[in-house]
Amino acid sequence: MTLTGQSLVAGQWIGDSANGEFNAFSPARNEPLSTRFFNLSAAELDGAIAAAQSAFYEYRKTSFAQRADFLTCIADHILALGDELLEQTHQETNLPMMRLQGERMRTVNQLKAFASALRENPESPLGLKVVDEADAARAPLPKPHTELNYLPLGPVAVFGASNFPYAFSTLGGDTAAALAAGCPVIVKNHTAHPGTGELMARAALAAIKECAMPLGVFAMVQSKAYDMSHQLVAAPEIKAVGFTGSFNVASKLQATIAKREEPIPFYGELGSINPQVILPNKAIEQSKEIAQSLCQSMLMGNGQFCTSPGLWLVPTGCDELEAHITACIDDAPSDTLLTPGIVNTFKHQIAARSQLDKVSVLGAGKLAKAFHANAHVFACNGDDYLATPALQEEVFGPAALVVRYDSEQQLMTLVNQLQGQLTASVHGTDADLNKADSLIEALQYKVGRLIKNQMPTGVEVCGSMNHGGPFPSSTDVRSTSVGTNAILRFMRPICYQA
Amino acid sequence: MTLTGQSLVAGQWIGDSANGEFNAFSPARNEPLSTRFFNLSAAELDGAIAAAQSAFYEYRKTSFAQRADFLTCIADHILALGDELLEQTHQETNLPMMRLQGERMRTVNQLKAFASALRENPESPLGLKVVDEADAARAPLPKPHTELNYLPLGPVAVFGASNFPYAFSTLGGDTAAALAAGCPVIVKNHTAHPGTGELMARAALAAIKECAMPLGVFAMVQSKAYDMSHQLVAAPEIKAVGFTGSFNVASKLQATIAKREEPIPFYGELGSINPQVILPNKAIEQSKEIAQSLCQSMLMGNGQFCTSPGLWLVPTGCDELEAHITACIDDAPSDTLLTPGIVNTFKHQIAARSQLDKVSVLGAGKLAKAFHANAHVFACNGDDYLATPALQEEVFGPAALVVRYDSEQQLMTLVNQLQGQLTASVHGTDADLNKADSLIEALQYKVGRLIKNQMPTGVEVCGSMNHGGPFPSSTDVRSTSVGTNAILRFMRPICYQA
Repeated sequence: MTLTGQSLVAGQWIGDSANGEFNAFSPARNEPLSTRFFNLSAAELDGAIAAAQSAFYEYRKTSFAQRADFLTCIADHILALGDELLEQTHQETNLPMMRLQGERMRTVNQLKAFASALRENPESPLGLKVVDEADAARAPLPKPHTELNYLPLGPVAVFGASNFPYAFSTLGGDTAAALAAGCPVIVKNHTAHPGTGELMARAALAAIKECAMPLGVFAMVQSKAYDMSHQLVAAPEIKAVGFTGSFNVASKLQATIAKREEPIPFYGELGSINPQVILPNKAIEQSKEIAQSLCQSMLMGNGQFCTSPGLWLVPTGCDELEAHITACIDDAPSDTLLTPGIVNTFKHQIAARSQLDKVSVLGAGKLAKAFHANAHVFACNGDDYLATPALQEEVFGPAALVVRYDSEQQLMTLVNQLQGQLTASVHGTDADLNKADSLIEALQYKVGRLIKNQMPTGVEVCGSMNHGGPFPSSTDVRSTSVGTNAILRFMRPICYQA
Repeated sequence: MTLTGQSLVAGQWIGDSANGEFNAFSPARNEPLSTRFFNLSAAELDGAIAAAQSAFYEYRKTSFAQRADFLTCIADHILALGDELLEQTHQETNLPMMRLQGERMRTVNQLKAFASALRENPESPLGLKVVDEADAARAPLPKPHTELNYLPLGPVAVFGASNFPYAFSTLGGDTAAALAAGCPVIVKNHTAHPGTGELMARAALAAIKECAMPLGVFAMVQSKAYDMSHQLVAAPEIKAVGFTGSFNVASKLQATIAKREEPIPFYGELGSINPQVILPNKAIEQSKEIAQSLCQSMLMGNGQFCTSPGLWLVPTGCDELEAHITACIDDAPSDTLLTPGIVNTFKHQIAARSQLDKVSVLGAGKLAKAFHANAHVFACNGDDYLATPALQEEVFGPAALVVRYDSEQQLMTLVNQLQGQLTASVHGTDADLNKADSLIEALQYKVGRLIKNQMPTGVEVCGSMNHGGPFPSSTDVRSTSVGTNAILRFMRPICYQA
């Protein structure tokens, strides 16, 4: 089916070249694709916002069962897009087809998880309703009947990610959570995969029509204009913002949001270096296994997972472990990253890190094509790491840093100076873990998910998942973007007293 | 016992006249009290912040049972302050002794409610832990074991209110919730009742010692210096702020918080006009009863409750109802407000409202003393109200505005233009309420607590309570400052995966 290059607003495909246009891009061929996409105008965005507000009055009255049907219907229409969706996304991202199949299933599962949660708890989200019975006989004053329940916040703006074209984009976790909560959604589609966004919006529109939902309940905005994002988050009708992307863009959006008269929640997911702590016995007894696990996890999606393990804390002197890492990384094939801009940043960061005196290259994959990114693992000792704050910065792409700790005490120092992270893992034998209470106690205050003896990539979609973590990994640590608890991002409590 | 006039920092009473001082004030006599209080210096506040951070490392490790014992011990020590506390507060606020007894009990009950909740749920706050079991056999990948639980955020700053010297002040709801959550607290005591704050801090210190808690877990800061509050909320160690007070002060604090590198939650409770909707049959059939209820609720604490009903929507032409209101208000004795500044603002607002062409005075109490505030109920019709945004502003003190609606449609218009409110009540007979679905549906999106046939004053401390509401009544609508759910203000989710 031909792509229109347009945005979806109030059930209509709109936008033309009058307001500027841009092309999709093929990372694999390192050249633009032929499809053009049209920037939505400011007035057209205002229309989408007004339609979302208008839809809210209807949509908030839908029962949980109706919303569950709607979410399931969206999931079905995503699957019905079939291979056309996968091929379009593969063209726009060069992510492997198998990876895209997995991410599509995960996105469908997130929609269905909300549908199940809504069906299982038709009276309140996650069964959180609380009832206190009246007591007319209580002295000195009678006790009233009070019930706590939850209401949707209102229209929500969602900013999709480049690296998860399904799971954190147009119909990803935030959109699913907001729709489950009873909130209309306006998605600012990521310009790295505009055709994917259009196809997903097509699936959403089909479900809206099939379920007779108000047309303004979902809009998808295409634009390369910087102002558009700020116009969206500044609009008084918008009651929450979900964002997955860079620290810099998030800071600018947050500054605009801070100028609003009404404060609203800003759920930003800004990246993480996901520290991996390798304890001494594990490092020695299972050196090959742990080295390969670290490398494989880091290389997944060519290092473009938000949970990619970018910092590996290993005991000083584990030569075998380091040799296995070197062997694994030297063998890693190079590949493209999502956009030329990301490749460019990656190469600059790699060059800068390579030039640091106290940092050595432990392994580096060969570069097959000039516009590829090739894997790098650097290494330094704990003292030099502590003295070089730049080494804490995330390198987005296939890179990691081994930091050698020379004592339990230095390991604790390294953990205590960490910034907030989405995840961290502790890898240890039983003997290691029996001595690691203080380490684990300290580490949990740095992360949103604490993992034992597993890699951080692969985020389970379930009720107990938490995806988010202390700043700067996320801007609102009290919530998750994955799993059924994410519905609470877009609801608020209300007490009914009678 | 003699008051020191000092602040409590890390278990020590500190502060002297070097950094400026101020006197407590007697609203009843309209003159300063003899006790002097010393402004804490910026360096001394830094000491309190460092002590809170240091205490956090210990306090966060306490079991729920230990925290429950600590909270219960604080409650016991508040009661042990006995009449000395009540008399001090009465001197500083002129709130009636009986009202203070009630508020003290409510404050003790809030502490004990958290203690009970912690004891009942020793594994997670409010039993919110979620466990998903591992499934090694799942294809294509095994399912990991994941558990969701909650961690305290870190040191919390609390700004006490003038109008609730116990329940929303030094050892009020936010302090209790933060301590229950595992967070140290630094209270900026309200300068309207500094002696009360000192006595309360004494109770806290006694409990800290008795329960062997880290000394930095609670600090109480006395200061009239404007900069101190901003220094406190800007400190990187502070991870959340609880505030009860005016829109203007909150806006300034929020601007400082917006400049932080790390975003943190700001829980401001900024006031509310708490609309009361009187439906037609109720207004006619129970005119005397409803008029008296409205007046009594509004006059409670001389109109200084955050839930004071300030806007009464009544059908046009209910002369009996209005006559009952007039009789009740004309009889109301005048009294002081909490501070001369509050009296001054009240008088200006009353004068401004009296001068509006389209607004009449329905009732006014006599002014016994010049520095008192006397009750006022104004009235206008719906159209004039809609045309005069200033009439939506809160008048803090014994004042209310009757707005006469001439149709169901106008009532809906009035409800739809409301700003966010802590509460609203709908008063109706069964016949009224059977026709009120649309009204109630719309009204719930304006409030944090929706009440049927009861007055909004009197906030129950229980698991289903919500105190907070859409902006501007509160700055973070996703949380409550009263009831056990308030513990979630100061915790965040974490997932443990193994």
